[in-house]
Amino acid sequence: MAKQPATGKQLFQALFEPRSVALIGASGDARKNTSRPQRYLRKHGYTGRIIPVNPGRDEIFGEKAYPDVTSVPEPVDHAFIMVPAKAVQAAIEQCAEKGVPVATIYSDGFAETGAEGRRAQERILEIARAGGVRVIGPNCIGLVSTDPGCAISVNAVLEMPEIKVGPLAIVSQSGSMLGGLLSRGLGRGVGFSKLVSVGNESDLSVGEFADLLVDDPHTKTILLFMETLRDADKLGHAARRAYAAGKKVVVYKLGRSEVGQDLAASHTGAMAGSDEMADAFFRAHGILRVDTLENLFELPALVADQKPSKRHRVAVMTTTGGGAASVVDRLGTLGVEVVGPTDEVVTKLAENNITISKARLTDLTLAGAKKEIYSAVLDALLASDHCDLVLAVAGSSAQFQPQVAIEPLLEADRRGKPLASFAAPHAETSLKLLADANIAGFRTPESCADAIRAWRDWTPPIEQPARDERKVNAATKLLKESGAQLDEYRSGAIFEALGVPRAASEVIKTPEQKVALEFPVVAKILSRDILHKTDAGGVALNIRDADALRTSAAEILQRVRAKHPSANIEGILVQRMEKGLAELILGYKRDPQVGPVVVLGVGGVLAEIYKDFAVRLAPVSVETAKAMIDEVKGLAVIRGYRGMPQGDREALARAVNAFSQLAFSDDVAEAEINPLMVKREGEGLVAVDGLIVRKQA
Amino acid sequence: MAKQPATGKQLFQALFEPRSVALIGASGDARKNTSRPQRYLRKHGYTGRIIPVNPGRDEIFGEKAYPDVTSVPEPVDHAFIMVPAKAVQAAIEQCAEKGVPVATIYSDGFAETGAEGRRAQERILEIARAGGVRVIGPNCIGLVSTDPGCAISVNAVLEMPEIKVGPLAIVSQSGSMLGGLLSRGLGRGVGFSKLVSVGNESDLSVGEFADLLVDDPHTKTILLFMETLRDADKLGHAARRAYAAGKKVVVYKLGRSEVGQDLAASHTGAMAGSDEMADAFFRAHGILRVDTLENLFELPALVADQKPSKRHRVAVMTTTGGGAASVVDRLGTLGVEVVGPTDEVVTKLAENNITISKARLTDLTLAGAKKEIYSAVLDALLASDHCDLVLAVAGSSAQFQPQVAIEPLLEADRRGKPLASFAAPHAETSLKLLADANIAGFRTPESCADAIRAWRDWTPPIEQPARDERKVNAATKLLKESGAQLDEYRSGAIFEALGVPRAASEVIKTPEQKVALEFPVVAKILSRDILHKTDAGGVALNIRDADALRTSAAEILQRVRAKHPSANIEGILVQRMEKGLAELILGYKRDPQVGPVVVLGVGGVLAEIYKDFAVRLAPVSVETAKAMIDEVKGLAVIRGYRGMPQGDREALARAVNAFSQLAFSDDVAEAEINPLMVKREGEGLVAVDGLIVRKQA
Repeated sequence: MAKQPATGKQLFQALFEPRSVALIGASGDARKNTSRPQRYLRKHGYTGRIIPVNPGRDEIFGEKAYPDVTSVPEPVDHAFIMVPAKAVQAAIEQCAEKGVPVATIYSDGFAETGAEGRRAQERILEIARAGGVRVIGPNCIGLVSTDPGCAISVNAVLEMPEIKVGPLAIVSQSGSMLGGLLSRGLGRGVGFSKLVSVGNESDLSVGEFADLLVDDPHTKTILLFMETLRDADKLGHAARRAYAAGKKVVVYKLGRSEVGQDLAASHTGAMAGSDEMADAFFRAHGILRVDTLENLFELPALVADQKPSKRHRVAVMTTTGGGAASVVDRLGTLGVEVVGPTDEVVTKLAENNITISKARLTDLTLAGAKKEIYSAVLDALLASDHCDLVLAVAGSSAQFQPQVAIEPLLEADRRGKPLASFAAPHAETSLKLLADANIAGFRTPESCADAIRAWRDWTPPIEQPARDERKVNAATKLLKESGAQLDEYRSGAIFEALGVPRAASEVIKTPEQKVALEFPVVAKILSRDILHKTDAGGVALNIRDADALRTSAAEILQRVRAKHPSANIEGILVQRMEKGLAELILGYKRDPQVGPVVVLGVGGVLAEIYKDFAVRLAPVSVETAKAMIDEVKGLAVIRGYRGMPQGDREALARAVNAFSQLAFSDDVAEAEINPLMVKREGEGLVAVDGLIVRKQA
Repeated sequence: MAKQPATGKQLFQALFEPRSVALIGASGDARKNTSRPQRYLRKHGYTGRIIPVNPGRDEIFGEKAYPDVTSVPEPVDHAFIMVPAKAVQAAIEQCAEKGVPVATIYSDGFAETGAEGRRAQERILEIARAGGVRVIGPNCIGLVSTDPGCAISVNAVLEMPEIKVGPLAIVSQSGSMLGGLLSRGLGRGVGFSKLVSVGNESDLSVGEFADLLVDDPHTKTILLFMETLRDADKLGHAARRAYAAGKKVVVYKLGRSEVGQDLAASHTGAMAGSDEMADAFFRAHGILRVDTLENLFELPALVADQKPSKRHRVAVMTTTGGGAASVVDRLGTLGVEVVGPTDEVVTKLAENNITISKARLTDLTLAGAKKEIYSAVLDALLASDHCDLVLAVAGSSAQFQPQVAIEPLLEADRRGKPLASFAAPHAETSLKLLADANIAGFRTPESCADAIRAWRDWTPPIEQPARDERKVNAATKLLKESGAQLDEYRSGAIFEALGVPRAASEVIKTPEQKVALEFPVVAKILSRDILHKTDAGGVALNIRDADALRTSAAEILQRVRAKHPSANIEGILVQRMEKGLAELILGYKRDPQVGPVVVLGVGGVLAEIYKDFAVRLAPVSVETAKAMIDEVKGLAVIRGYRGMPQGDREALARAVNAFSQLAFSDDVAEAEINPLMVKREGEGLVAVDGLIVRKQA
């Protein structure tokens, strides 16, 4: 029977506060990497037992050494394995025998090298699982805890004299980046609680570490450096717990430029690549995603004591118009709203003989670079309800006269409002003062704007909307009746059952068959074997009467049979001809990484080229659907762009919500309505074409 | 008669190497800003005469003071005016009387404050012009020269002990940012030759300063911080001279998020805002534009000894996969090509027992973090023809073991290839080593990627294509014959004369009139008074024969006369009905800032929303037109996107070139072809609708 692995507090202690650490493969040769951990452990304050394991030595650097971990007479809480790949299995077997709860594997040569390495990794994991050993790695550079000190790693970054203790924890999928991140954080004066490299993530994953850190009293913010998303469920769960505990999760994830990988039968696959899916995932769980590397360290102070805000109006004050404009300009490209002061603010300041303009940017100019003035204006902005975040941009004074533009920030009563500061000059001293006061200080205008953008995009974890029992059941029933492969007509019926109106439709089996529809109509070939109806000559538009329908239907059948002689034809789908203000595409997909997602965009090839789509985890509420509608640039065409009429956004939001309830069916792999025609305000919308693809059995 | 102003070398000396500086409005109170210049001049090594001018004092800080500049017994090369706005006129009058060649006006309260201030500024300028005085400012914080030292400024940044001498000159439209820029540059170890704040730019402009700096032997790179573009001609001229002299001009310009200001009668105005125009201007003159502020200082070393490259393949090597990926990911979003090593490179290294993969990213991993290996790989990449730029990303070693990943860069034979370095950790010492060796070292992945993007976009100043005499003359003749306001038919004739084919067209005066065109045709109302033909009921499509044309034409006339009873109707334009692969929009505009520009995009409202257009100064060559076609994302629809057929890009490039020759006519304010239908490869294109707007007399 498999041994029970350590969990919760017990696991946390074995990972970060072990009473003893066995260094399997430790070297006594100070030039070798494998000699480092012993030195680093002591250097960074580890006070527990260090047990070198090396069959060729009795003692290493003053500690008694053992030939293998089973021969250690006392309990071992944590094993750090540094032996060559082929010796790792034996080491894990011994850890299992000895009952070591946690093994961190530094050795590489596993899944990262290909199929054979992957198999070796799986073998090791089986042994570990059976023996109740939790594994970090392999191919993992180690982990560090600062209080109490415990640095189990070969990372040369640990040559640094000490690691400042602080509230940030890092979990990194890149081992080689861990040192870089640590040194960047320290370089700007922030301190750390924990640093973890997860390596190949064969067992303990980013999500599981994040979950453990939620319960770590030393950690206030969890920073993630991610290359991919391997455990969305665990990470989502951890992020929600973090949110509830008032802790922030901030992620920098690679893959922005990844091209959509899985071009599926429908367009939905191409619409959003895996990175957009990850984006939707982060948003759904209240995770802040940053776009600049620096923001892993600059953003946390901005949101440290914050909750997501419902409004996002930014007030900007400065003594350097040019410096502030460099941030405001970028905020503009990111669509962040910058607001000038209200009359009330202007009047109140005027009463104190301080004149500011109503311009969007409150520029005190050099003449206003006096502490009393700076403080009074800052105070007035922080106190006023017209803005939800204050950005104070400091000019040259930040470098030589911190009392002018920095002290006012340190002394300000922030009244719970987020406060950001950007120093136009190189002003390390001022940035240090700000960091010590836990005020967000930014080094570059780009990072400053990105942080404010991330704050704007930040929402509480999204609650799943209620399941509409009646509709979902009706849809599920239809789905069950539809067989393995659905045609357009049956797919449309399911969309309709969920609550998305479709164009009035009838199926005729012969050209002669009459329809009860109002003309004009369109006729389309109905066949699961024909993907591209138009190319197959299977579509006729604008049919004005019954006679024309008979002719068109006969022509369609003739053309299609000539082109696709073996296609199984179910009939001809006749639909009322519809017109709308805009043709949209609404897609659904069960993504392998993040699960069900819904995608909304404008139809046609251009929107696809511009990747102009809103993506959310499904199902979505009507409220979230509205946010999606606002987010799609091309949907300006239903938002009254250039005097165009308003589209029925209410109906669209309801339709997106209804459609997204496909997520309640495990059986649907993909679905798409294309086009979904949105009419004028109050006139609703109608699905004209679409398809559901069932999961492969 | 107006006195002749100083020019060339004489002007340069008065600006940067004056033998004497009069400080008009100098204060003897050390707490006042106006006391600073005297102190700063001496502090930063000025050895010439300092002459305080102040009617209330005989002496200031040990220098004899004068009541006004005319009573100074010796010549004054440069006056720095710090008196209140209303006293500036008198000061300038005295400078004119005294024959001071240059006056820098620190005083504010002029054009930046509104109409009254603008008038005061104009008055002062008239006096200065008449007296041969060149003016910097007003509202200008001053200027600094480092060798020989001459700091004429109130900028508190001059409190710093010394300014490192080096090859960078800054010209800034933001005075308050000048200190910030200086301190940022010094903070990263680069040195400066000159720093200039141009203030309100009433006389000496950014372009004129850039031109003077081309001849400054101390300046190698001219950095511009710009808020707007006031003197495109001079700046373009200076940039071309700089290019010829091997000096680089690098600009950071605000206004990326500015919304298109002048929505004109046609769409062209909305297509490209003033910032896109500025972009086109910078490109045309070989100016490198950066998107991150830091790149004003990080980019120069990358291009210092370079010419623009025709190919832009980037090789990336690293010991930290995650760190390098943070740059490569962003390069991907910017469309920069990253290439893996060739077989030849791999084989050559294998001969030296160094194994690298053929992957896009050459990741040596920690195991390869040895100087010999790093050097050998770097050398192989620099020597190989498969790449045009090498990016070396250093991991933790950059911080503690510069010999591993930094020394190889210092020692490398760059063979004329640009070399960029990004350090994943906070590694100030390594960055300093790189700066001293004039190797581009980047602090953030974002800035690194932006610099490589700027290098990719950099071209030599673009030569104006030859004027096609015959065609331009024919077009000009038609233009002259067309009267003040052109209709669609006459506009089309001019496009055709230039070489853009248009749909076969005839104008009929009555519905009964016959046409010789092949059917089907379209009929459109022809009236200079009707801008929106479709809205007016003035368009009929797909007319199949002469009978139908008669009916349609009569209906059009009836509808239009009912809706626009007072419109002057010239007839009905009948055109062969055309179909294309894609409908484009081709626009021309004489921009008030940069002059003639040509704009190419996809037709329709979406492309406008996405701002997906290519803009260039007009006229453009066929080659430049091809680059424009490649640049427009939406034109993927004629580049074989998703199996779509290829469009006739050759014909399109020729048409863009032909159309852009409108720039040879001073008389055209705006022009637009919309839609321009591009057909399949080899089948050409055809203009279907369009209009020329003449300049207002």
